[in-house]
Amino acid sequence: MAAAPPRKANPPAASPAAPARHLAGRLSGKVSSVLARASVSVGFDRALAREDIWGSLAHARALLAIGALSGEDFRAIQRGLGEIRAEIGSGAFHWDEALEDVHMNIEKALIAKAGEAGAKLHAGRSRNDQVATDELLFLKKTALRQRGFLLDLREALLARAEEVGEALAPGYTHLQRAQPVLLAHWLLAHQEAFARDADRFLSLEGRLKWLPLGSGALAGTSLPIDPEIAAAALGFASPARNSLDAVSSRDALLEYLAFAAILAVNLSRLAEEMALWSSAEFGFLSFPDSLATTSSMMPQKKNPDGAELLRGKAGRVIGSLVSLLVVVKGLPLSYNRDLQEDKEPFLDAASTLDLSLPLAASLAREATFNLPRLREAASDPFMAATDVAEALVLRGTPFREAHREVGALVAFALERGISLLEVTPEDFLSFCPQGDPALLRRLGPEDLTRARGSTLGGTAPERVRENLARASARALAERERLIAEIRERDLLLQALLETGEGTP
Amino acid sequence: MAAAPPRKANPPAASPAAPARHLAGRLSGKVSSVLARASVSVGFDRALAREDIWGSLAHARALLAIGALSGEDFRAIQRGLGEIRAEIGSGAFHWDEALEDVHMNIEKALIAKAGEAGAKLHAGRSRNDQVATDELLFLKKTALRQRGFLLDLREALLARAEEVGEALAPGYTHLQRAQPVLLAHWLLAHQEAFARDADRFLSLEGRLKWLPLGSGALAGTSLPIDPEIAAAALGFASPARNSLDAVSSRDALLEYLAFAAILAVNLSRLAEEMALWSSAEFGFLSFPDSLATTSSMMPQKKNPDGAELLRGKAGRVIGSLVSLLVVVKGLPLSYNRDLQEDKEPFLDAASTLDLSLPLAASLAREATFNLPRLREAASDPFMAATDVAEALVLRGTPFREAHREVGALVAFALERGISLLEVTPEDFLSFCPQGDPALLRRLGPEDLTRARGSTLGGTAPERVRENLARASARALAERERLIAEIRERDLLLQALLETGEGTP
Amino acid sequence: MAAAPPRKANPPAASPAAPARHLAGRLSGKVSSVLARASVSVGFDRALAREDIWGSLAHARALLAIGALSGEDFRAIQRGLGEIRAEIGSGAFHWDEALEDVHMNIEKALIAKAGEAGAKLHAGRSRNDQVATDELLFLKKTALRQRGFLLDLREALLARAEEVGEALAPGYTHLQRAQPVLLAHWLLAHQEAFARDADRFLSLEGRLKWLPLGSGALAGTSLPIDPEIAAAALGFASPARNSLDAVSSRDALLEYLAFAAILAVNLSRLAEEMALWSSAEFGFLSFPDSLATTSSMMPQKKNPDGAELLRGKAGRVIGSLVSLLVVVKGLPLSYNRDLQEDKEPFLDAASTLDLSLPLAASLAREATFNLPRLREAASDPFMAATDVAEALVLRGTPFREAHREVGALVAFALERGISLLEVTPEDFLSFCPQGDPALLRRLGPEDLTRARGSTLGGTAPERVRENLARASARALAERERLIAEIRERDLLLQALLETGEGTP
Amino acid sequence: MAAAPPRKANPPAASPAAPARHLAGRLSGKVSSVLARASVSVGFDRALAREDIWGSLAHARALLAIGALSGEDFRAIQRGLGEIRAEIGSGAFHWDEALEDVHMNIEKALIAKAGEAGAKLHAGRSRNDQVATDELLFLKKTALRQRGFLLDLREALLARAEEVGEALAPGYTHLQRAQPVLLAHWLLAHQEAFARDADRFLSLEGRLKWLPLGSGALAGTSLPIDPEIAAAALGFASPARNSLDAVSSRDALLEYLAFAAILAVNLSRLAEEMALWSSAEFGFLSFPDSLATTSSMMPQKKNPDGAELLRGKAGRVIGSLVSLLVVVKGLPLSYNRDLQEDKEPFLDAASTLDLSLPLAASLAREATFNLPRLREAASDPFMAATDVAEALVLRGTPFREAHREVGALVAFALERGISLLEVTPEDFLSFCPQGDPALLRRLGPEDLTRARGSTLGGTAPERVRENLARASARALAERERLIAEIRERDLLLQALLETGEGTP
Repeated sequence: MAAAPPRKANPPAASPAAPARHLAGRLSGKVSSVLARASVSVGFDRALAREDIWGSLAHARALLAIGALSGEDFRAIQRGLGEIRAEIGSGAFHWDEALEDVHMNIEKALIAKAGEAGAKLHAGRSRNDQVATDELLFLKKTALRQRGFLLDLREALLARAEEVGEALAPGYTHLQRAQPVLLAHWLLAHQEAFARDADRFLSLEGRLKWLPLGSGALAGTSLPIDPEIAAAALGFASPARNSLDAVSSRDALLEYLAFAAILAVNLSRLAEEMALWSSAEFGFLSFPDSLATTSSMMPQKKNPDGAELLRGKAGRVIGSLVSLLVVVKGLPLSYNRDLQEDKEPFLDAASTLDLSLPLAASLAREATFNLPRLREAASDPFMAATDVAEALVLRGTPFREAHREVGALVAFALERGISLLEVTPEDFLSFCPQGDPALLRRLGPEDLTRARGSTLGGTAPERVRENLARASARALAERERLIAEIRERDLLLQALLETGEGTP
Repeated sequence: MAAAPPRKANPPAASPAAPARHLAGRLSGKVSSVLARASVSVGFDRALAREDIWGSLAHARALLAIGALSGEDFRAIQRGLGEIRAEIGSGAFHWDEALEDVHMNIEKALIAKAGEAGAKLHAGRSRNDQVATDELLFLKKTALRQRGFLLDLREALLARAEEVGEALAPGYTHLQRAQPVLLAHWLLAHQEAFARDADRFLSLEGRLKWLPLGSGALAGTSLPIDPEIAAAALGFASPARNSLDAVSSRDALLEYLAFAAILAVNLSRLAEEMALWSSAEFGFLSFPDSLATTSSMMPQKKNPDGAELLRGKAGRVIGSLVSLLVVVKGLPLSYNRDLQEDKEPFLDAASTLDLSLPLAASLAREATFNLPRLREAASDPFMAATDVAEALVLRGTPFREAHREVGALVAFALERGISLLEVTPEDFLSFCPQGDPALLRRLGPEDLTRARGSTLGGTAPERVRENLARASARALAERERLIAEIRERDLLLQALLETGEGTP
Repeated sequence: MAAAPPRKANPPAASPAAPARHLAGRLSGKVSSVLARASVSVGFDRALAREDIWGSLAHARALLAIGALSGEDFRAIQRGLGEIRAEIGSGAFHWDEALEDVHMNIEKALIAKAGEAGAKLHAGRSRNDQVATDELLFLKKTALRQRGFLLDLREALLARAEEVGEALAPGYTHLQRAQPVLLAHWLLAHQEAFARDADRFLSLEGRLKWLPLGSGALAGTSLPIDPEIAAAALGFASPARNSLDAVSSRDALLEYLAFAAILAVNLSRLAEEMALWSSAEFGFLSFPDSLATTSSMMPQKKNPDGAELLRGKAGRVIGSLVSLLVVVKGLPLSYNRDLQEDKEPFLDAASTLDLSLPLAASLAREATFNLPRLREAASDPFMAATDVAEALVLRGTPFREAHREVGALVAFALERGISLLEVTPEDFLSFCPQGDPALLRRLGPEDLTRARGSTLGGTAPERVRENLARASARALAERERLIAEIRERDLLLQALLETGEGTP
Repeated sequence: MAAAPPRKANPPAASPAAPARHLAGRLSGKVSSVLARASVSVGFDRALAREDIWGSLAHARALLAIGALSGEDFRAIQRGLGEIRAEIGSGAFHWDEALEDVHMNIEKALIAKAGEAGAKLHAGRSRNDQVATDELLFLKKTALRQRGFLLDLREALLARAEEVGEALAPGYTHLQRAQPVLLAHWLLAHQEAFARDADRFLSLEGRLKWLPLGSGALAGTSLPIDPEIAAAALGFASPARNSLDAVSSRDALLEYLAFAAILAVNLSRLAEEMALWSSAEFGFLSFPDSLATTSSMMPQKKNPDGAELLRGKAGRVIGSLVSLLVVVKGLPLSYNRDLQEDKEPFLDAASTLDLSLPLAASLAREATFNLPRLREAASDPFMAATDVAEALVLRGTPFREAHREVGALVAFALERGISLLEVTPEDFLSFCPQGDPALLRRLGPEDLTRARGSTLGGTAPERVRENLARASARALAERERLIAEIRERDLLLQALLETGEGTP
């Protein structure tokens, strides 16, 4: 779960006394209170505190290697940052808006603990490469965690598919009953979409190999720092290969936001169906009391708020994606202050998924299906019409002709007020002269689903079983891979905190 | 300025013990922690606390009138809510996430203060009409305040226009120098856009006349409440005329968000020009140190962060508009829980404008124009080309022909490396046989601006003076109207807090 | 209906030979084919052809007044533009992509017809003020027409409300049955939202008073043109008061797009409910065959495509709004070529509403309600719970307590598998000691709706009748006003085409 | 280049006589003209005609294998579709709006050519799986083509980087001069962003492995078709594994749109810089006349329309992404007619990139850099401040202290009106006591760029050379891979058209 709760918020009215961006020297006087209020970001960018510390630990290691930090300096920094990390974790750290952002808050605290060593740490870097590094580290962590949440959700859907076996449900197009399907087939349909979301999250790694740290403000540094040291320490494949690009680009965040929006849309579709199915009219599922709420006015109500909130959250994530696209559009290189506006949409989307994915998994896990009612709705005899037409095809009628004949047969039955399967053999033959009236007796919903065995992704029980097995095996493999990646990352970070200066 | 800082944030991980939406009775057991986390809104909806109290005071008055509250009950409620209001103002109020939202927090606190009287207050209303009322009250307050901020900004631009008199500036199309204009003309151009924004904000009132309170959950109430009482007390023209619509609709918020986005885009255009003009290459204006920042790495930098932040904020507001449009799209009537997602985009846009408008006014007020450099750029002789062509028109050449002749003349001059005004009379006549070469000596930038006197909105000094006077008079009238509206509203609210039950 | 169908499309691959923006003179050589392809706009901006002609007729009148056109010139132009207008109307006009845009196509055609007089027409104006004028004229026309479409839709809803009288329907919150309402109340709820949309469309006029024509490229013109002439001829209150703003601003289009998006969202909500209600599970309404479609594969299907398309169109309009906000954001003054991208989102939104509004009116007019099924769903006894609680309030129980008691009573009934109204008097009193068990016999759906008479917008039959009468009277007044406005506009335009040069 | 120009347009007013979705049989009577207008899609979906034919050829092969088509049927279909393909290519094909969509137009034409064989073709499929297949095929083709365009653009930037060698340019942050960089470094920065875009386009393949065809309307087909046949014939790894998902999902399109939007934003940044740099104030580059335009009013203008159009197009693509996200959000499974709204945003984005990418490549290729002016701007002495501070660090001053000292030194020089390098040694030492005044003589822009050699992505000439070589090698490898992929696809499609029924 995200460390500090990311917040989308404007800074409060209080105007900081001695703002960090007014670093003494070049500019005189105080920052205007209106600019100060617009500049303060520590209310939300402190969500990056852990990443900021990791980045600083790696940078210290690189400074140590060129003697810009002594061994003693290094140890003081390592110890100081370790303490700050603990204080942040426990809530004891004092965040000061006058220091504007997470970077300056931590640097000031470090100087207070480590003295001059702390004042040496910013050599060879800028907030521009520092914040880009923090964001990529945060993005890696987020993607890893959310791949886990996605797996939880998929495993929940797979378990329900296993559990409901060959239970039937109506399949819809246009929200009109179309053909019967297995309830498991429906569960697997949603699982399939989330598996693609997982693929997308995994593919993010392809754009996260290059460490911005070392790019300085825009052009690199004149200090003889070896940027490979920090890259290795932080688990990047290489330092970035263009410093201007490294501090200007936000496309990794945009890509994450895009994937988050697509995922949120996929979640909204599951949520919509769950909300619909829990209505009195559908009556296909119900939620436990723990996933429902009542009304402040109407004592009888039991509302599917979980599903509704899940559905609504898509709006929020789409809005965040739009925000950042607009901010970046048309910006000249390299860093511009507009980019401060990248953090809130990104952090808000990340934390929205941290809420939405477990909520979706709970809804999937704990909904109770009303199997008899689902079966009854799946038994609507008119849903057999396609099979009647396809049977005519197998007896030689061109499909377009068969479709027309069966359409007219349906209209005839509706007019008589009888079901498609109650048509007499004579009437049947008058509409479908090439047909076999005996067919009408073999069109129960189980017949219809069983008949869809040739389609690899069809709803026949054996196909559904196969695809369930396949999806489960894939999920298991992903789970193992994920565990290994998390372990590897943990080792890396532990090394940053603990390894001494002699062991780069 | 907004009361509590509106926050866009997801609720924290901690799961509340006894969530409000699980009002004892209908549902058993605890709310699931995932739903609880998604349900908690008090972190942001407490920005509506003042409005919630006003709405409750008005509702209490209506309950008093039918005897559902005794005089004693009413006084206890009035006193209790007054205290709660003070506690919230001072920061002493304890917000409890277990109580989920602002409404339940205040109701619980009221019951603690006023006992059974407090427990009677929710009769005849629902959170559905309650929150819709709170939002409209907040929207009215916000629009009123921001009309004031818009006036501040416009007055700043008008004052600068007054101050710079007939100073010249280059006018651009395609970011290429096009024709000289008065600097005041440029200032008034931005003012004009903000005046339209002010019109839009004012027009919001047209959709804010109908009080949702009284609509109950969706269908009204069976209690014999007179809804006119609350409408009058809160300054609405009438109770809403359709209860289903009143609790479902969010189009007043959408309209505000749309206007906020358009305004933010207009602000971004001013900001873009200010950032450009403060570059070394343009060098047309500079900001005081108090509106600039330096770099954490590069000691020489002085950056126009104020303008950049102002430009970037447009992305945020556009994103908020998109969020709410997406949330509402396709929702069936009446209330659905998705609508909880209306508050953060709305509150965030409101608070973004609370930051952006004063920032823009400061930038406008405190920028220093480099008048000599502006005049020099406005003196580029090629900018006279249109006037040469128009002079030919007055001497009988059809404009298309004149345009072609002068275009060729320009190409000729460029090839020779001379300015348009350095062409010899002979050369001039060889391109423009109907022209008068003497014209070339009357094409300084002052000549060119003075020539634009026929156009009512043209850049001739007398036209600019007139339009400045006109815009100033309008701003003054708006200021007076605004002051009157604020006074009226304050009286209304004071009456709610103070007037006894005998004086409806 | 819109003249030429506005198209959102990129220009085709063919590269025009002699592009208009390369007006001979200043630039040599050919335009690159990639730029030519990106520049061509006549494929979509020809939707503005009528407005372009009107603007030119008004401009000619102003040129005539200063002698820049002779009487003969003027008549040749008036005749030529009249012919071009007729050719465009009949489809005979040849649009040439090599001439890039609608303006140059018409100007070239005019020169072919009127000779030198045509070549004089562009004096004193630029494509910058010309296109801004065309767009505002098109916007006025569109808003007028769509106010008519909105009235059609509202009248359809009002007529249905009249027709269904006191028929009942279930009212929902959270898509769970909540309280019974009148079906007419539901119809009026949607009507109410569309009436606000109509208000918004009407309020657009407030930002459409100022004529851009006369602003030239950015600074006005040096010709002694009287801009009031064109303003009066085209029905604007005044020439624009700032030329830089007049050619740069697109906020009138943005405001229209925002209102279109809000309207499209309101339409999507009606569409969602109609699609839901036409499902087998709800079964509340059905569409005639003429508003439904079948499936290419499943012969039995009857799908509510009209409602689905209506719902989906909201995405398109929201996207158009976003497009233009992004394009304008951060643009420096005055005209930049990015603004060419304003037309397609604007025209597409206009034409989407031209489709959606009549479609919605048809759906509203022709849906058949299944009144018995609606009444049955409205009779769910648990929907009486609020009234039980409110009755307790009237007997002195504080509402919070009453809510709890009735909630527990509901839980008890559900557990027994009985309806709320089947509870024995003893059981009732054990939960609600202050209640009157006789109440349970007076809680049919008609009782419940009748009880909501105090709320002005409540669902009691007399309130619904009143609000229906009120809304009908308002619609009638709007219809009359609209007719008058259309007549006035038609007279204005006819005068432009027909009035001679002696009668300004 | 895209086959038929994709168009974003609403259908025209004319109402088709016998609409396809009213396939005779089930529904009686005519489709309402409002629904017909909203339903017609052939105006834009005919862009999918080639893909529709490929899909049909593959489906025919599968029907042949089970005997649902005879060898003769198959040959008639293959011949007929081949002819239709040629007619579409030549423009001779007659598109009929009464037939509604591309599928029915082609099917009808096929029946006209191939008789009963054509009427058999739709057996075992639905328009639902058919259109999903067409879209994925179109997406694959588009991604392949646009990877080529991206390579063209990157190669153009790489060639310019090669050409300009070690030429200098000012590097900016906040649009303020910050540090000198190599012009090649700036070119490579943009190249780097486009290389990531290329990665993203390539990664789309990961979600394009599964063929929807065979999924039928939603549940598969009862005909014993082997779906592997079509998958192999069309180059998919496998048939889709869930039929409900296969016809419902649009996330491959959403992913493409997201990548297109990110790419368009990256293009807008290059365009913004080019527009800025071509202003008189920057004067860093100029475009050939063939990539510029003039004004209709101002004869002297030469405008960078290409860059402006490129910048503006980002708004359009972002809008398209938003449109489709909104359409899909909250849709229940499986197919809903709202999904007809997927095509125009998708096709419009595809065709916008088909315009934008070659335009960007032309701008990059043909801009002329003003190298002396760039060098002069890169020589601003204050840009050496960071190096002064870093030199102090190497002599032992903690960076924070060094930053402060140099900041004060800068302020001192500015106050004196001298450059940073004109400070006397004494003054220098009074600010920077640990410094070496000799340093000031080694701070020309070449010194500053050379000093950035340690950073792998820094701006030192040898680093830039390395990174140019690296990027060029990567581009070459991608070009080879692309050529191989195109060849492979062409063979596949040729086989579809030509291979007889005996050779699956």
